[in-house]
Amino acid sequence: MIPLSTTTQFDDRSKMNDNSIFIGGKPFMNYVTGVVMQFTTKNADDVIIKARGKFISRAVDVAEVAAKRFLDNAVAIKDIKVDSEGFRSNEGRDVRVSTIEITLSKNR
Amino acid sequence: MIPLSTTTQFDDRSKMNDNSIFIGGKPFMNYVTGVVMQFTTKNADDVIIKARGKFISRAVDVAEVAAKRFLDNAVAIKDIKVDSEGFRSNEGRDVRVSTIEITLSKNR
Repeated sequence: MIPLSTTTQFDDRSKMNDNSIFIGGKPFMNYVTGVVMQFTTKNADDVIIKARGKFISRAVDVAEVAAKRFLDNAVAIKDIKVDSEGFRSNEGRDVRVSTIEITLSKNR
Repeated sequence: MIPLSTTTQFDDRSKMNDNSIFIGGKPFMNYVTGVVMQFTTKNADDVIIKARGKFISRAVDVAEVAAKRFLDNAVAIKDIKVDSEGFRSNEGRDVRVSTIEITLSKNR
């Protein structure tokens, strides 16, 4: 069993309080609003939009709409990282899933 | 009317001969093979993988599989650009579509 402290420290989901927005199947504008509020209400300097698999396209849409339509000129895409994770599916097959992290930053 | 020379020079599609692979709905391995062959048979130094909308996730998958499974250590992702294009749909609505360009390069 993994000690709780390790899980808490390294589990990606725990970073969601840390200016990260993890994109899934909720209504599109939920995520856009989430990003915009990190910059406005919480006064964050950076917000990281994360997604896996088919939600990667959506993550790019969220980044574009938030940066260009809602926060025009105040925020821009600073960095994009893609990677992939291998794991064993429930059926025992080796599966690879792509991931993306898009960092939006306030223009200074 | 746009002069032909301008169209030829600036139309993105014309760059498809220029080491670009445009991702669509064909079988996944077609695109991976296309990328790998640009580096091997055609000896390209860079290949640009382009996609729009829902095919963006697929473009990331193609880049990851080509770079990590087929060309391991020989090729890496050098640059990723995302953008969005606005246009008027057939129904007269203003539509925005996201785009991605992933540049894979030979490690030197």
